[in-house]
Amino acid sequence: MPKTKVAIVGMGTVGSGVARLLLDHGDRTARHAGRVLWLEKAVVRDLSKARAAELPEGVLTDDLDEVLNDPEITVVAQLIGGLEPARTIMLQLLEAGKDIVTANKALLAEHGPELFERARELGRSIAFEASVAGGIPIITNISQCLSANQTLSLEGILNGTSNFIVTQMDVQGMAYEQAVRLAQEKGYAEADPTMDVDGTDAAQKLAILAHLAFGAHASWADIPRVGIDQLDPEDLRFARELGYRIKLLATAHLDDAGLELHVAPTLVRAGTPLAEVQDAFNAVRVVGDAVGPVFYHGLGAGQMPTASAVVADIIDTAVGRTRLTFQTLELFSPVGPPRVRLRAFDELPGRYYLRLHVDDSPGVLGKITGALGRHNVSIASVIQHEPDDRADRNTVPLVVMTHEAPEGAASGAADQIEALPEVVGNVVRLRVKV
Amino acid sequence: MPKTKVAIVGMGTVGSGVARLLLDHGDRTARHAGRVLWLEKAVVRDLSKARAAELPEGVLTDDLDEVLNDPEITVVAQLIGGLEPARTIMLQLLEAGKDIVTANKALLAEHGPELFERARELGRSIAFEASVAGGIPIITNISQCLSANQTLSLEGILNGTSNFIVTQMDVQGMAYEQAVRLAQEKGYAEADPTMDVDGTDAAQKLAILAHLAFGAHASWADIPRVGIDQLDPEDLRFARELGYRIKLLATAHLDDAGLELHVAPTLVRAGTPLAEVQDAFNAVRVVGDAVGPVFYHGLGAGQMPTASAVVADIIDTAVGRTRLTFQTLELFSPVGPPRVRLRAFDELPGRYYLRLHVDDSPGVLGKITGALGRHNVSIASVIQHEPDDRADRNTVPLVVMTHEAPEGAASGAADQIEALPEVVGNVVRLRVKV
Repeated sequence: MPKTKVAIVGMGTVGSGVARLLLDHGDRTARHAGRVLWLEKAVVRDLSKARAAELPEGVLTDDLDEVLNDPEITVVAQLIGGLEPARTIMLQLLEAGKDIVTANKALLAEHGPELFERARELGRSIAFEASVAGGIPIITNISQCLSANQTLSLEGILNGTSNFIVTQMDVQGMAYEQAVRLAQEKGYAEADPTMDVDGTDAAQKLAILAHLAFGAHASWADIPRVGIDQLDPEDLRFARELGYRIKLLATAHLDDAGLELHVAPTLVRAGTPLAEVQDAFNAVRVVGDAVGPVFYHGLGAGQMPTASAVVADIIDTAVGRTRLTFQTLELFSPVGPPRVRLRAFDELPGRYYLRLHVDDSPGVLGKITGALGRHNVSIASVIQHEPDDRADRNTVPLVVMTHEAPEGAASGAADQIEALPEVVGNVVRLRVKV
Repeated sequence: MPKTKVAIVGMGTVGSGVARLLLDHGDRTARHAGRVLWLEKAVVRDLSKARAAELPEGVLTDDLDEVLNDPEITVVAQLIGGLEPARTIMLQLLEAGKDIVTANKALLAEHGPELFERARELGRSIAFEASVAGGIPIITNISQCLSANQTLSLEGILNGTSNFIVTQMDVQGMAYEQAVRLAQEKGYAEADPTMDVDGTDAAQKLAILAHLAFGAHASWADIPRVGIDQLDPEDLRFARELGYRIKLLATAHLDDAGLELHVAPTLVRAGTPLAEVQDAFNAVRVVGDAVGPVFYHGLGAGQMPTASAVVADIIDTAVGRTRLTFQTLELFSPVGPPRVRLRAFDELPGRYYLRLHVDDSPGVLGKITGALGRHNVSIASVIQHEPDDRADRNTVPLVVMTHEAPEGAASGAADQIEALPEVVGNVVRLRVKV
């Protein structure tokens, strides 16, 4: 049986998982690849650091040159996080003739065009299934399995950390800070969870998926995004009362006006599959013009789900499938203009949930409906509860669900409402999944 | 741009859908394939029959030789149903050097080994994504995306017709015959729906998936199967009362004792994803040892979902991915023994739902629990309702949910219970998903 020599660069959690699959299950990978996948080298920065994975003698090294200068190593799983030295190492590996497998979506989001162009020039490939949605093979599904379709929409819960935190807040009634700490204890959140909870991570993943599914040239930084870091438990409760759950939803919708892209905490109707995604799970719902809706659900992160995606990519690369796919992949492609126009955020249609606290006095509701009316935002339903006691004022919480209106109009109305003297504090405005 | 000439054999519903995608969306398929997919011929039996798809001059023919003798046609979507002449035509196409795409799972289930062996000998490939679960790309997901995993279990709602009928009975309270008629009107069921409703179709699909996921050499005819054709609305109601739904579930579970395979109406806990699969949708839940659980949900049949899968296969075949996958595919492979032992049905563990009608007299429950006890089947819960009036006897319906026990034991106990003089009619016994 032929042999493909493989190296891993970066032996963190995912790298150790990949090593385990390659070392402990060589029969399995050989069966699927039709060749032995031989772990030749595992490159680390610090040899003295303790590691979970037991490696055979001679595999572990802190010298990248042992990979770069070994022409028999043809596939490298580049599993270093962050931007540098990950970027430089990936370029070095490409120059040295290696095909790359990576899980680093931040790197692709920032330097994808440069890396992909270089790979194309050099006749190499970059596989990146593990970079989005962990164990859900959404990259292969969009770029290969659903390739007969024009994708019409894509909605995803793409950040497991955020979903875990929101689930704890929603189901267990935990405070935000407490839920973050639990996520950190369980290894779902970094010491600094900012990129997860502020929507950056989900926007980076959405940018990759939007490239693949729509041929959009979307930079993640241009995707409007709101995280869960400001989410108020009060809104989780009201959403529940209205028959919804709040999820950090990454949304892409195509229509004649162009492509709508955004990441935001969104009210999703309870009982629908996306609303019921719990804990660190991810889910993606894709609608194709031929296939209709397809729904995927799986673990969004974690050592072995991510390693599963990396090793599938290693197999695909060793077999030769990745090279074939990479050639026609609509990702960071310099060829031709984008196939879709990105819609401006203000023009995006949406339904909205508005929650505010108002003085318990006559005429207030009239002023609020007036502000909405002036922006042509019509009201679908209103909940006004009994008075609560907020500090020194006698206020009542008020929730307004609107019919469909452009973001700009809803935002303008919300600003005007917030400026009313009878309104205490901020107006919370969340999107409602249509 | 290079061109691959494609032919369709069989212009029924799916064939017309495939033609539509190839003709109307040539830009799309060319983008994903990196080559033009050119529909050169569409072969039909009867030229005079009216067709939905508008074909360009010269494409439609009733002469298969126009495909067989044209060496430029390299990919053929063979979309004739049934066993013959489908089998003979597929062999002719392979001999003529064509790579095949098919949606005919019955043909694969019956003649897969012969067809695959011939394809291997001739250096050709057979792609069959459309043969299982319609729009859900489960074949590629198992054989490629999850290839780093040992599959531990696979549970699927694989027959859209049955699921549609059961949904109508369960949600709308329709009678079985009425639901079958509605399924026929909507095009979900054939004029003779036997293969769908008696579990044959699901068993054929499960056999294919079990080959791929477990390396099992399972003939569909050996898979124990019960259909929905005997399902009593009374059991749908009791299941609901117990917090379950009844679904025609295809199950494969691997443990140290071997592989469990069966198709049966099964109680699935309400609120879990498989329980909530409605109408003609299909769903598959796969558990891999690395990736954990992955859940797929999509349209199981219909013109365009199936055509989507066929065209994805045509693209994969034209690009060369199918050839690479086919070489290492664990399906109908003559190499080596099966990797798993198929467990005998009688030894399979399961929980059970037993429903019976008994005379409303003292001591009956004792006799029933006695019969269960003699077979070491322990009771988890019992529901006994108020008397109903069945014909001339005063009987009460009785539902027993058991703890886990082997099929053989549960079946033996049920037979003994059915033989009790106080039991009226049959004992209904259904599996409960653990």
